[in-house]
Amino acid sequence: MLPTGLYLIPVTLGDTPIERVLPDYNQSVILQIKHFIVEDLRTARRFLKKVDRSIEINDLTFYVLNKRTPKNKLYDFLAPLQKGEAVGLMSEAGCPAVADPGSDMVALAHQRDIKVIPLVGPSSILLSLMASGFNGQSFTFHGYLPIQGDQRTQKIKELERRIYSDNETQLFIETPYRNQQMVDDLLKSCKPQTKLCVAANITCENEFI
Amino acid sequence: MLPTGLYLIPVTLGDTPIERVLPDYNQSVILQIKHFIVEDLRTARRFLKKVDRSIEINDLTFYVLNKRTPKNKLYDFLAPLQKGEAVGLMSEAGCPAVADPGSDMVALAHQRDIKVIPLVGPSSILLSLMASGFNGQSFTFHGYLPIQGDQRTQKIKELERRIYSDNETQLFIETPYRNQQMVDDLLKSCKPQTKLCVAANITCENEFI
Repeated sequence: MLPTGLYLIPVTLGDTPIERVLPDYNQSVILQIKHFIVEDLRTARRFLKKVDRSIEINDLTFYVLNKRTPKNKLYDFLAPLQKGEAVGLMSEAGCPAVADPGSDMVALAHQRDIKVIPLVGPSSILLSLMASGFNGQSFTFHGYLPIQGDQRTQKIKELERRIYSDNETQLFIETPYRNQQMVDDLLKSCKPQTKLCVAANITCENEFI
Repeated sequence: MLPTGLYLIPVTLGDTPIERVLPDYNQSVILQIKHFIVEDLRTARRFLKKVDRSIEINDLTFYVLNKRTPKNKLYDFLAPLQKGEAVGLMSEAGCPAVADPGSDMVALAHQRDIKVIPLVGPSSILLSLMASGFNGQSFTFHGYLPIQGDQRTQKIKELERRIYSDNETQLFIETPYRNQQMVDDLLKSCKPQTKLCVAANITCENEFI
């Protein structure tokens, strides 16, 4: 039986085959888990079926943890762990507890002295950093930048300052439908010599770097 | 045949079995590559033998890229790519081009319009961030902190300031034999309420988080 603990389970980024981005070990862990804390129910179910079509989804218990989940609800999610069972934590894409609400759950597990076991999988942040050719000795991830004009320009200029003053690579994400606007704003706000790497659909058929 | 390009190949962190931390796809890519740019020859050979014992090391060409490699040497490493062959880039541990000299090679590949393909694998930085329970929406990786007393204290205080002013998780690495000194310095320099996560031997038998 799988030792009790909170297993951090990465999922595919888009429509990638499992064996392209996940170690075999992850499958063996997943098949032994009956309780999953997930960011999105539908994505989680679809992912589990992709891992192994014979998984009986109805035998599993799901707990939804997203931006709207009240913090006190998280204590309920600890119940199986306190009974000695293993629990999996999954986000909607990529690695849980990075750029998603999962880290609150991990923090709570540590508070209760519950073992936390991170599994290897695809992270769009790390893969794009690797593939950028930019400084990987020192980098900052910012999540999303502000959407509004002035605030956004100010943030972009602050990030650019950090590239030159601290030799720090600056990473951020954007939703597909705002990508063009983002590129326009970067071209407008940054020095001509500032380098930009655009990475989209990483590990997928139409990977663009 | 594998399409030409610079494949970024993660290796195990310490003595982990391959199937614990690497997708099957990586093996299939590795078996098709004859040219490897590596940080350390011995580690690279040992890793390749671990991936598949039948790999004929003598049939492969290795190019060493480490801190002491002169920058102009990197142009020579492009030769197989310019002939349309695939080249693998490996660091000594974890993901290449993050916290190692590989990013210069990636940058050069982009300059020459050579395709760069990052593969999924273990990153001690990302895995410890996932498992820390700290803010994963915004974080900075600093590499090694200064070794000397005053400079180090100043840097630790600057990092702590960024935790509170920008709500940014601060990550850095330390060599095993300096770990105790690092913990002592952190305890001496930081506020009592500042949280610290120590992650060592990630994905290995004696993982400590």
